[in-house]
Amino acid sequence: MKQMILSTLFLGLLILINTHSNAQDKNKMYRIAKIKVDASQLDKYTFALKEQMNAAIKLESGVLSYTAVADKKDPTLITILEVYANLDAYQSHILTPHFKKYKETVKDMVLSLELTDVDLVSAATK
Amino acid sequence: MKQMILSTLFLGLLILINTHSNAQDKNKMYRIAKIKVDASQLDKYTFALKEQMNAAIKLESGVLSYTAVADKKDPTLITILEVYANLDAYQSHILTPHFKKYKETVKDMVLSLELTDVDLVSAATK
Repeated sequence: MKQMILSTLFLGLLILINTHSNAQDKNKMYRIAKIKVDASQLDKYTFALKEQMNAAIKLESGVLSYTAVADKKDPTLITILEVYANLDAYQSHILTPHFKKYKETVKDMVLSLELTDVDLVSAATK
Repeated sequence: MKQMILSTLFLGLLILINTHSNAQDKNKMYRIAKIKVDASQLDKYTFALKEQMNAAIKLESGVLSYTAVADKKDPTLITILEVYANLDAYQSHILTPHFKKYKETVKDMVLSLELTDVDLVSAATK
């Protein structure tokens, strides 16, 4: 009897954890940023971008992942896949000193910026 | 003296591991695929895509990661960030039965496909 109660409690806990984790995944915010950088300032831009990305990942619990890639044929075309825990995490992020510093630093380096909100279809990783 | 030799060997080993790992990273192949799907077949397309992604990640050591996202404003616009261990891994991948099955299944579902080879600028993840 005691074992049955324990098993039921354990099962309940598993369902609770799973539901909670699915709800967290559902709230995640995915965004693609496409950035055209002034070619003569590409190195400076890349430095500022990395500094911002690393600070946000280190300091903000709600900033989950950044992947920045550059077109092989035109390295001034940069695409960033951004993942935040939820909309609140994103809204806090854009108020942080490191994000504000980045925006100020790159304002004359970025020739165009296109933001696309996206939903995750599927992710598979080793 | 014995300690010094051991320390030197250990340092040498660390440098070797680090060089090897950097070389592996340098060979990685990153690609962005942009796909426009026929709206009336979106569910079928998504099913086939997930099946291909999961099979490749499970069966092929050189297929490292897929992240597929859909534009919130137009879910028929799908972007996939693909990461392979190297060019050979990619070339083997497109000859696998699961990839060939995917291409055959989706050939009338995909309205356009744009492939862009990219270089990693930086990645930061929790």
